Order: sequence, then C-alpha cells, then structure tokens
Amino acid sequence: MKIENPNPITWHFADRAAAMQSSFIREILKVTQRPDIISFAGGLPSADTFPVEKMKSAFDKVLTESGRVALQYGPTDGFPPLREWIANSLSTEGCTIAPEQVLMTSGSQQALDLIGKVLIDEGSRVLVETPSYLGALQAFSVYRPEFASVATDEHGLVPSSIDAVVEGARMLYALPNFQNPTGRSLSVERRQELVETCARHNLPLIEDDPYGALSYKGEPYPKMLNMNPDGVIYMGSFSKVLTPGIRLGYVVAPLPLVRRLELAKQAADLHTSQLTQMVVHEVIKDGFLQEHIPTIRNLYAKQCQAMLDAMKEHFPSNVSWTKPEGGMFIWVQLPKHIDAMKLLDQALAAKVAFVPGAPFYANKPEMNTLRLSFVTVSPARIQEGIAILGKLIAAFK
Amino acid sequence: MKIENPNPITWHFADRAAAMQSSFIREILKVTQRPDIISFAGGLPSADTFPVEKMKSAFDKVLTESGRVALQYGPTDGFPPLREWIANSLSTEGCTIAPEQVLMTSGSQQALDLIGKVLIDEGSRVLVETPSYLGALQAFSVYRPEFASVATDEHGLVPSSIDAVVEGARMLYALPNFQNPTGRSLSVERRQELVETCARHNLPLIEDDPYGALSYKGEPYPKMLNMNPDGVIYMGSFSKVLTPGIRLGYVVAPLPLVRRLELAKQAADLHTSQLTQMVVHEVIKDGFLQEHIPTIRNLYAKQCQAMLDAMKEHFPSNVSWTKPEGGMFIWVQLPKHIDAMKLLDQALAAKVAFVPGAPFYANKPEMNTLRLSFVTVSPARIQEGIAILGKLIAAFK
Repeated sequence: MKIENPNPITWHFADRAAAMQSSFIREILKVTQRPDIISFAGGLPSADTFPVEKMKSAFDKVLTESGRVALQYGPTDGFPPLREWIANSLSTEGCTIAPEQVLMTSGSQQALDLIGKVLIDEGSRVLVETPSYLGALQAFSVYRPEFASVATDEHGLVPSSIDAVVEGARMLYALPNFQNPTGRSLSVERRQELVETCARHNLPLIEDDPYGALSYKGEPYPKMLNMNPDGVIYMGSFSKVLTPGIRLGYVVAPLPLVRRLELAKQAADLHTSQLTQMVVHEVIKDGFLQEHIPTIRNLYAKQCQAMLDAMKEHFPSNVSWTKPEGGMFIWVQLPKHIDAMKLLDQALAAKVAFVPGAPFYANKPEMNTLRLSFVTVSPARIQEGIAILGKLIAAFK
Repeated sequence: MKIENPNPITWHFADRAAAMQSSFIREILKVTQRPDIISFAGGLPSADTFPVEKMKSAFDKVLTESGRVALQYGPTDGFPPLREWIANSLSTEGCTIAPEQVLMTSGSQQALDLIGKVLIDEGSRVLVETPSYLGALQAFSVYRPEFASVATDEHGLVPSSIDAVVEGARMLYALPNFQNPTGRSLSVERRQELVETCARHNLPLIEDDPYGALSYKGEPYPKMLNMNPDGVIYMGSFSKVLTPGIRLGYVVAPLPLVRRLELAKQAADLHTSQLTQMVVHEVIKDGFLQEHIPTIRNLYAKQCQAMLDAMKEHFPSNVSWTKPEGGMFIWVQLPKHIDAMKLLDQALAAKVAFVPGAPFYANKPEMNTLRLSFVTVSPARIQEGIAILGKLIAAFK
C-alpha cells in the first residue's frame, strides 16, 4: 500500500517557528529528576499538598450526577458556576467583576498564548519586567514582538521607568506577587503608581497572579485588577492552590478583549474540559481553599526559611539573595565574575541543580544570577544542597 | 483603592484578531438547544454512547494508584504509554509508527492550531477541500493564509486538480473518512493518487481522521499515513469514539515536524492533562474500543438510515444528498434558487434546525447546500423534522 520511493519532504516552516525554543528549564528538569540529585531547579508545586482524596470524590460525584453533561462538548467561555465563583472571589467592595469577564483556559499558560495572539503583531513592543517569567516570554515570542525590559529593584517593577519605553507598546506584562523567578513582590504604592501610569498611556496591564494566595503571612496584596478593572487583564490558576496536572486557569478582562480571547480560544481548542471545571467547582464551592491553602503556605514557608537559614550559613558574603514573603522561589545574585551557567555544570557534577537566571531576561541577561526553588525538597536535603552550592561558589574561579 | 477617572482603554488588537469570527455553527447551537426544536444542526456525538461508568472507575483507579503523578505537571509530548498505544494502533505490516512521532493535544482542534502556527505564514497558500471542515478553516485563518479550494466530486477530493493550485502551497488539509460536512469518503484509488501527488509536489498532507472508526460496516479505509509516513501528518481524536468533553486528541507527524509542534504546544499550554491521558489509557488499554465502537456505529447507522428513508419520502425530487457509509453527517444539495440561509429562518420558525453549507467553503460558497446531523435525534423525531423540512423546501419561493 505504501507508495514507492517518495522524496523525503523538505519542510518549509513558518517564520514564527524559527523563534520557538524549548524552555531551558524543561531541558534541565529532564536531567534533574533523577533521585540522586538535589534539585532546586523545579517550578513544580509539592505533590504532597495535592488534595487527592477530595479530587477523587469530586470526580466520582460529578460523573455520577452529571456524567453525560460533563463528558460532552461544552461552552468555549467555560462552566458558568465556576466562572461565577471566580468573579465573586475577585470582586471587592468597590469593584464588582462580572462572570462574563471570565474566560476559562487550559492552564494559565494558554491565557498567555491567547493574549499574545490577540494583542501582538510582528514587531509590536511588549513591556516586561527585568527579569520576567520565562513561560510568558516563550508564549509571547511566538508572535514575534519586540520586548522592552522595564527596570526593577527590590520593591519590584519601577513604574517611573515606563515612560521612556512606552512608545508604541501594546501591553505591559507583570507578575506582582512572589514573582517567578525573583520571589519579589510589588509594593502597594508601586501598584497604584503602575496602574495609573498604564492608564495614562492607554497601555493594557497584564497582572499574572499564580502565587498571590501563597503569602506566608496569609495577607494577600491588593489586586491591580480592582484598582482599574477597565485597564487590567488578570490571570489566575488552580495549579498552585489545587493541582497543576488538571490544566485549569482563567483570564479576566474587559468585555471587548475577553470576547476576542474567546474567539481565539474557540479556534485554539474549542473549550477546556467541562469535567475538570465541574470537578474543581465541586471541590472549591463550599470554601475548601480557605482551609487547604494555609497547609500549602505553611509547608512552603518552612522550607523557604530552611533555605534562607542555610544560605546565611553557607553562602559567601559577596552573594546576595531575595527574602520572599510567599511563593516558591529565591533569586540569587552572585559576584560579577561567576557565570551561573558554568556554576551549573559544576553543581550538576556534585549532584545539585538550579536554574541559571539568564533565560528569564527578555534582553541583556545578567549571567551572575540564578533561581532556587525550595518547595519540593526536605529541609535536610535543602541544608545539604545549599552547603554544596556555597562551597562551589566560594571556590569558583 | 480604585484609581480615579481612568480613561477607558482604546484597544489595539493584532491584525490576526480581525480575522477571528465565531463559528456560525456554535452560534446556531445556542438557539437550537431548546428542547422544543428538532435539531439536525449539532456536530456533537450522542451522549447516550458515553461509557460513563467505565470512565468513572478509571478515574477512581488512576487517582487511587497514581494520584500525585496524575495531578502533577507532565511532559509536553504526552503520557508515554498512551503515545505507545496510539503508535501501535496506527502501525501496519509495512509501516511502523514510532511513539516519538505522537504528540498528545487538547482535542484535535489544538492540533489544527499548532499545525497552522508552525506551517503558515501570512499569505501562505493552504489547499483545502470544497467544502471543508469549518473548525480547520477557523484554526488556520488565525495565521492568515490564502486558501485555495481543491475540487471534490462524489468520490471526495479530486487529486488531479491539485497541480493547478499547488504553486507555493504549504500544505493540503483533507478529511478523507465520512467528511464533516459532506459525509463523503475518499476512494482507495484516490487516496493512493493523492499521496503520490502530494509527495511529488513536496506538499505536506494533513489527514484529519476523527470519524474513521465509525464505518457502519466496520471496515475502515486504509490510512494515507501508512502510504507515506514521511509526508503525511495524521490527526486523531478520542472525541467521537469515547467522549469529547475530556478534550483529548493527537497528531502523528515526521520527527522534524513533530518536534516543532511540541515546542509550539509547550508555549501554548505546556501539556495536556496527565490525569485525562492516564484515564483514557486505563480505559482503552485492554481492547475496550473494539467492543465499544460497534455500539456507536450501530446507533448512528440506524439513525442515518432513518434520515435517508425520511428524505426519500419527504424531499422533492429536485433535491439530492449524500449517502454516508459512516460518520455523523449528510450533505444536501437544494435547487439553485434556494438559499439555505433563508430556508433556515423558515425552518427555525417551524422548530427545525440545520446548518447552512456556506460557512464550510473557504472561497466561493454554494448557497444552496446544507448539513444535517442525525446522531442525537431519535428516528421518530428525524421523521417528523425531515417531513417539515421537505414541505418548506417544496414551498420555497
């Protein structure tokens, strides 16, 4: 049946395909999942926190009571009760979010793709933090923007530095709470200033918020969405507060934009699993997250402290790092002469892994930076791994 | 906390967003889901065929045995045992498909989006059947190709008509088995000729195959993938043989392309739910589909026959239609003076719905065509609805 001697095909890829690169992190992860390696490279939440039994009963209940609906095609915008729950959870006294503003997505990574698809033309300027979330840079890169990096300091993004780069910009992307990769949060004053600056420039502000609920003290920062719901596009996710494997996120946007995002989603994958949405709604509708999230926070806070203590003990004095008040990451600034890529080679040889900072920069990278995650490693292994890293840093030539 | 008097944002959408339109079918479906309407408009499989109990036990088993793995982030290319199962199911005596060629997707709609993303530049020529699947036209349109329609007749696409339009084409998209919307299948001779023609022109051939297993006689057509695995991109789905709500499809392609598609998927949504993939693998691994698919086929075959019988009885003699040997759709050719859009208005007033044919044409539409689906309507209601349609067609002025 096979045809005879076909010529091997010569592929002609689209120009945008040339810009696609595998995430450096996902490449590192392939190496570092061996159990003998102490890996601070992961971006995965701790599987110990997954409410497996709760999810299992919810799947059982939804399939028993509404199996044929849950397993059929569903609406592109999402399961209405879940959209309503999300809208309520984001509404504040002065700011009501409507369920119509909520679009369910296949993880919040898909929201990044849809936003890029709808807002970025080739060469469009896109403003990002320095450094920024790698998954966002990857998603937007497909649409071939020109990235402009906005300065950051220890309080996060510096709003006053926007004016100089805003000309022609299509949007600003920010991750204000316990940022990936730095663990830094934007101060409340800066939020207000950032929202005002973007509004003044007619600049859509993307507020990506996967970690907001993971504040170790349990006091969340105010959302920029609520400061200007007509100018902010908010992204949320169930990956860090429930489980990531179900791939469920959402984007909240002003109606003219959310309708475009919905059309883009229809063309991209029709809709996100109804079953998953119904199950998540079943799990969270009676307040489960209020009791569950503190258990995640406490675990991460303890391990973060263990890492900070170990760093204080083992890292040379010419190394500095962030002290996160939530989330999953610590950001390390090495002395200028240390290239974190080279340090990684030495670390892997000593069976410790981390992610070098360079891939998180949209433009000129700072090679002497790295990201550490503490959430999937026990305090004893954290102590051990940090001690090894400290020695390698001190001995680096 | 709200900022004062922000200017309402003036949106600047990407050029491609202007090309996005809501599927006409999904718009019709919103109207026709009222229970008093006899709807032949749907593209949904019959929920009566969903193996709900089987799915429920599989969710229970996977979550009990491997909950923390199933609910964690997973690999972009998919769950290895499921990819292996798919590769085996597609391998023939003369043609082995490797698991590495299989990329799991969030429904086969996502495969369309990824293929468009990786192969289409603005203005690239894309060859499609006349008429073609609407979801594919929508997915590809985002990347702004120039569609060229390839002629079809009662045996499906006419390969000899490719030469005239192939210049500069990036791919040819075909749905050879029980096509949506026409219900037609490509003859075996035509398949061979099509594969050879595409190979001769270095033209990637997309073989979209959601309905292939739904042959009423149980004899599937040979796959073009197996005639030239180096030049054919095959798309499959669990939507029509299991359930669509879980959003699980796959694409099989030569390695250089599948690696690009994987990068595009990583940027688009990281990966498809591990849990869903593990559950589907659990459901099908011991041969469940061989016993399950015949029950779907038999139901659809019976209802298809009921519709064909009713059409013979009630449709005027100047109307012609396809006689599908599988799948979910019948295609109707009305006399030239009848615009199916206008007929739809009259039909809806009489509480019967269908989908006009025009949206399925990439270029010049034939306004006197329409698509009927029989899979979710009982034989009695089919008889009733077709009688009403027949009267409206006969009386149309």
